Amino acid sequence: MKRESAGLVETKCHPIPEEIALEHGGRLAPATVAYETYGKLNRELSNAILICHALSGDAHAAGWHKGEEKPGWWDIIIGPGKALDTDNFFVICSNVLGGCKGTTGPSSLNPKTGKPYGLDFPFITVKDMVDVQKRLLDHLGIDKLFAVIGGSFGGMQVLQWCVSYPKMVRLAVPIATSAYSSPQQIAFNEVGRRAITSDPDWDNGNYYGRFPPTPPARGLSLARMIGHITYLSDESMHQKFGRRLQGKTEFGFDLASPDFQVESYLSYHGDAFVKRFDANSYLYITKAIDYFDLTKNGTLSLAEAFKGTSTKFLVISISSDWLYPPYQCKEIAEALSANDIDVRHCTIRSNYGHDAFLLESGQMNYTIQNFLSRRSVGDVMIKDVVTIRQGSSVEEAAMIMMTEGVTHLPVTDADGKLAGIVTAWDVSKAVALKLTLLEEIMTRNVVISAQEDPVEQAAKRMNEHNISALPVVDANHWVIGMITSDGVSRLVSVCR
Amino acid sequence: MKRESAGLVETKCHPIPEEIALEHGGRLAPATVAYETYGKLNRELSNAILICHALSGDAHAAGWHKGEEKPGWWDIIIGPGKALDTDNFFVICSNVLGGCKGTTGPSSLNPKTGKPYGLDFPFITVKDMVDVQKRLLDHLGIDKLFAVIGGSFGGMQVLQWCVSYPKMVRLAVPIATSAYSSPQQIAFNEVGRRAITSDPDWDNGNYYGRFPPTPPARGLSLARMIGHITYLSDESMHQKFGRRLQGKTEFGFDLASPDFQVESYLSYHGDAFVKRFDANSYLYITKAIDYFDLTKNGTLSLAEAFKGTSTKFLVISISSDWLYPPYQCKEIAEALSANDIDVRHCTIRSNYGHDAFLLESGQMNYTIQNFLSRRSVGDVMIKDVVTIRQGSSVEEAAMIMMTEGVTHLPVTDADGKLAGIVTAWDVSKAVALKLTLLEEIMTRNVVISAQEDPVEQAAKRMNEHNISALPVVDANHWVIGMITSDGVSRLVSVCR
Repeated sequence: MKRESAGLVETKCHPIPEEIALEHGGRLAPATVAYETYGKLNRELSNAILICHALSGDAHAAGWHKGEEKPGWWDIIIGPGKALDTDNFFVICSNVLGGCKGTTGPSSLNPKTGKPYGLDFPFITVKDMVDVQKRLLDHLGIDKLFAVIGGSFGGMQVLQWCVSYPKMVRLAVPIATSAYSSPQQIAFNEVGRRAITSDPDWDNGNYYGRFPPTPPARGLSLARMIGHITYLSDESMHQKFGRRLQGKTEFGFDLASPDFQVESYLSYHGDAFVKRFDANSYLYITKAIDYFDLTKNGTLSLAEAFKGTSTKFLVISISSDWLYPPYQCKEIAEALSANDIDVRHCTIRSNYGHDAFLLESGQMNYTIQNFLSRRSVGDVMIKDVVTIRQGSSVEEAAMIMMTEGVTHLPVTDADGKLAGIVTAWDVSKAVALKLTLLEEIMTRNVVISAQEDPVEQAAKRMNEHNISALPVVDANHWVIGMITSDGVSRLVSVCR
Repeated sequence: MKRESAGLVETKCHPIPEEIALEHGGRLAPATVAYETYGKLNRELSNAILICHALSGDAHAAGWHKGEEKPGWWDIIIGPGKALDTDNFFVICSNVLGGCKGTTGPSSLNPKTGKPYGLDFPFITVKDMVDVQKRLLDHLGIDKLFAVIGGSFGGMQVLQWCVSYPKMVRLAVPIATSAYSSPQQIAFNEVGRRAITSDPDWDNGNYYGRFPPTPPARGLSLARMIGHITYLSDESMHQKFGRRLQGKTEFGFDLASPDFQVESYLSYHGDAFVKRFDANSYLYITKAIDYFDLTKNGTLSLAEAFKGTSTKFLVISISSDWLYPPYQCKEIAEALSANDIDVRHCTIRSNYGHDAFLLESGQMNYTIQNFLSRRSVGDVMIKDVVTIRQGSSVEEAAMIMMTEGVTHLPVTDADGKLAGIVTAWDVSKAVALKLTLLEEIMTRNVVISAQEDPVEQAAKRMNEHNISALPVVDANHWVIGMITSDGVSRLVSVCR
């Protein structure tokens, strides 16, 4: 299968002139949302997928910016032939509110002062971020998302989408995330913030506009280094660095320069982070992460939090993720199940730790692609099914088949329940044997399907019994639809 | 069983006037070692146990300092009736070289300048620290340790002892430790150091002697907070803090004061750490930890590293420890086994994370006490055993029993191999039945023991067979000793 790039892309901006009322009482106006899109929105406006980025991400999820050496941060799964196939889907990613990559955040100009907000920026929550994404979708004319997908803090946004706008999300894929920040996650965020606010260059957030620029580089770099450790696993660090020395053959006995590759690597990436991220955004976003809790600090059960959503979920956890351990995804899946919501929980086997959702190309593509192409029988069945009453004649059956253009005719009893099925082939058999009563030719042990069965299951059943259509029945055994192999194969050709 | 305190104790100082040549070429003179002792050294000088402390520990392991509110850091296992029973053992703990609690370190006066060393303090290693402990033992007149015990960085010192002075250590208990620092451990140490050296008050280590004192408090506090997270488990943080707020009922929306208890707790302990620890010591000791690697950066296998030690090991890991995960202890145990060294590896079941070795009083006492009281049969068997040759008469046997004062007499064949055993009770039976030949009364299926069997096993065997003595045989089936229930019970009464 071809796996290509989304090509050259650009970040666009959507202005929001009207005032935004924030969850915790603050107000913001005007605002801007930076976003990118890949693929085309179809005529039915039904193929939009929203991607939510993690703490240090941005709107540039896929494809290439002119002149840059690296593609977008989730290029592994977005593009022609990939799980988020831009030949079929319209993929959208926006920078979060409070960020520093185009969307309004603490480094944006405060219209009241004409200077960057700094700590005058209002406190924002994951709910506020999702609300701003909703405004972007309104602008794009999308009132229903085919899917919302994101990992880590992006997964929190996915969950918030399903709670804030339950009717708007058809499929949701939260990855390596949690329905609330755990004390350990809060603790790591707090030491990161502490690193920044302890840096004298932070200066209570007023570090903008100095020349030459002197952001709180040591603090932000250190915060990133701490975070970076938590995104890797012990095992992956063994593999990646071991105890190898950096540019020396013996220990340096020197506090100023690193001895080990792992120190040098973290330091390099910490410094690089300073060039691309704003320290105040780091503070505001990590606070929003800490505050995130769908149980509203225990006043709701998680099951209650998800009440009212009809979204179908694929929850993905990562075996070696110790920052967002699999049990947190399991809690999400169980709370969804408790609401009878259709949910699959799968665990990616990976040594990469939390970062695996950005790295495990094969498993991520396979798992997400399968989920996106999965439909339930109810989604694809023919709903206006013609049936025939028990006791009818073969001739009557043949007449209906001809006028309705069908080859399979469910036979119902006096209560309307499925009693058998008769096919065009049965009719031709009756002709050969000179039989006239339906009873003599109909099949009584009908292979059936239920509305909520996955399409794959129905397809498998048709294959096994070598038949090309199944009646779909409800709990009363009334025929509510029909699934045909023609319908299934059309589906597969669209979604692969 | 009574479990008491070691009582009021004081830290003593031992001066080392002669120059110390350090592993990496530096030299140090004079030096001082701060230490404490609990219990009394016995006449045979055979009951000394050395305790090695962790990164932030000191010589005050047990008992109480006058006027202080807390006992020593490992009071849970040291004292009358505890695993390190000060009624039986002479327990020693000293502050490590490079520390700041009485032993010479970067905050000590440099005799050349009359000012604190600061960064002029030479780089030190775990081997150097152990060498200084050895000098203290020389001073105390101890040439063989009954045991060396320590957790975390203390466990590294335990391992180093067994490599540096293999003949001096009878039993070793490394706990929640590793034979080398992993890249993840190095990474956490490095971000801690980075926090300190990024603090302007650190001033390249020259922060001593200011008035009022201005140590790099923000940096050291932050380093401690980072470390503290790694000493706890995700699970224990859920239990201890959950998402409870600190002194408020709603989120503060304020970057200056903590929202959650976990933040407040870490911050409090970070600040408290500044009052009791020296930032430069933190740098030097964490560097020594990073450098620690018994495999000498892969030039030796771990099995080769342990070659030559005859110490018996109990390696203890902690189920929820993610900083020093159980697999690291398993590696140690396997490398020891590869050398045919007597080693037991057990895992404490605890949710406390790395800190469990300081908290799990019950399991720590039980496991260590069992190990310390464990002897092998070879340690306690009677070595000069009188035997009798097959073919002798009952009368001859009775004569030997009387003159030697024994009740059990192994019977040997012409090759000197064990052929049976005869007891005083057998002799009296012979008298009653008027039998005269040894063959007629001796037991042929002798229950035996081997020199390397644990005493518990021999005791269990005696119990099962309702007998009070077992011949100890070697691989040739020659009798090399005798273990009696009297001997075992004496042992138990001493060691409990």
